[in-house]
Amino acid sequence: MAFVHFNGLRSLQISSRECIFNPGCWHTRSDISNNKCSAVKACIKQPEQKVHLESKLNSVLDSVKWDEKGLAVAIAQNVDSGAILMQGFANREALATTIASKKATFYSRSRSTLWTKGETSLNFINVHDIFLDCDRDSIIYLGKPDGPTCHTGSETCYYTSIFDSLNKPQVEEYNLALTTLYSLESTLSRRKEELSSPEQGKPSWTKRLLLDDKLLCSKIREEADEFCRTLEENEEESRTLSEMADVLYHELVLLIRRGLKFEDVLEVLRCRFAQSGIDEKNSRKPKTVK
Amino acid sequence: MAFVHFNGLRSLQISSRECIFNPGCWHTRSDISNNKCSAVKACIKQPEQKVHLESKLNSVLDSVKWDEKGLAVAIAQNVDSGAILMQGFANREALATTIASKKATFYSRSRSTLWTKGETSLNFINVHDIFLDCDRDSIIYLGKPDGPTCHTGSETCYYTSIFDSLNKPQVEEYNLALTTLYSLESTLSRRKEELSSPEQGKPSWTKRLLLDDKLLCSKIREEADEFCRTLEENEEESRTLSEMADVLYHELVLLIRRGLKFEDVLEVLRCRFAQSGIDEKNSRKPKTVK
Repeated sequence: MAFVHFNGLRSLQISSRECIFNPGCWHTRSDISNNKCSAVKACIKQPEQKVHLESKLNSVLDSVKWDEKGLAVAIAQNVDSGAILMQGFANREALATTIASKKATFYSRSRSTLWTKGETSLNFINVHDIFLDCDRDSIIYLGKPDGPTCHTGSETCYYTSIFDSLNKPQVEEYNLALTTLYSLESTLSRRKEELSSPEQGKPSWTKRLLLDDKLLCSKIREEADEFCRTLEENEEESRTLSEMADVLYHELVLLIRRGLKFEDVLEVLRCRFAQSGIDEKNSRKPKTVK
Repeated sequence: MAFVHFNGLRSLQISSRECIFNPGCWHTRSDISNNKCSAVKACIKQPEQKVHLESKLNSVLDSVKWDEKGLAVAIAQNVDSGAILMQGFANREALATTIASKKATFYSRSRSTLWTKGETSLNFINVHDIFLDCDRDSIIYLGKPDGPTCHTGSETCYYTSIFDSLNKPQVEEYNLALTTLYSLESTLSRRKEELSSPEQGKPSWTKRLLLDDKLLCSKIREEADEFCRTLEENEEESRTLSEMADVLYHELVLLIRRGLKFEDVLEVLRCRFAQSGIDEKNSRKPKTVK
């Protein structure tokens, strides 16, 4: 455990989402190239602070309500999309290792050993924060995966819908558990794929937009304008929601048109608001002169 | 178990997110008043279909890898925001009951009994779909909560950040596990709250926007235009992501300005794409004549 604690202390000097706002932390590198951000920070800790931190770490680990086997449920969630990536179990050492390494680490019940997701595949889950539930017996590793999480190559381990199995004559093998926005994004992507198939599928508004940049851009400008007018003309709240839904749908179509993912937009936002406004502005690529 | 199965069969005639697209299903009611949607559908099942369905249900329940106590981990997730609401355990009966009732149901290990989240508080979690992981020993109840999930009154049970506990001199009591978009939304809400406090906090761009509708709307129109131009002028993909991040941030500020939540926009979108385009268009409130 000394090893884990030592690493824990070293690693706590590296950024977390929360550490960013600590007065003792300062940026050493901020890299947003290729739309990936890694804001590495250093905190200057005095020896007495280290002792204090070790005591805090032990106190947190002690506060978890480990079950009779010394385990708690650990759920890995994508910090940007919110997708539940996988679920495993953590013991005290696995949690301490995750805190230290910032790589989601579990305890394998079948192999009776620690394992860090990604140690074989290199698809690590880079942990930004860790949460305990109200009973302190369930853990969320909130992080960003380096690649698909499931050993099958699927983005997440949850791709079997029970309602599909019961309702559909033929079960689709691969139907990821998607929340509303990503379910819509997936539908829009399918429309784009249909356009490249010989049959092109049924006609749809999405397909018209995907084939006509002028129409798509005019709709985004029009919907953004209508969204603003709900405020300017003090319309009902439900109209603001409805117009925001309109503009968001059309914006998603433009992202799909360019082969981009909404999750990548969120990553850009996350990098931005993890920095001070001035650092962020300075790190942006200059706009093309228009 | 016969009871559960009987209910299961009846309930399977009511809509799921997937049933919507089944040819054997038809809408009986579609209610989007107050921005809440509930698309109730009926499927006409023949007796032999019922037997077939019961056999399918048993086969699904048999396929779950229940542990030595007959349990599997069950995670409830908000279908719109992606927030992990709570985690419990399900046995065969709890899962069958959830399939039947569409209310997230668990097995209480401490009380050795089934319990449906909301049976006391009436804050049910209305399940839209259920997913199994690749090992078939972990379950997601993807649903919409009627109100706060945690017994403490918190929206979710995960409000204790381990990194906060370790890094901050004083731990905030209530720091929900929020993914990127909702973390940003929460920051923007705090800026709005600061504006109503006597000190008003530090000046910020968000506060300027919140106090100046004209500026806010002009920024949304400008950013939407710049987002479109990245397509029209075939700019780099990173520029599209960056401009989408800009427009999304400003749109979020308008939602906050009006006291609205991004999750509510997603609910509107969910209701829309759960219906045929024609039904959806017909159900919309007429726009104010401008």
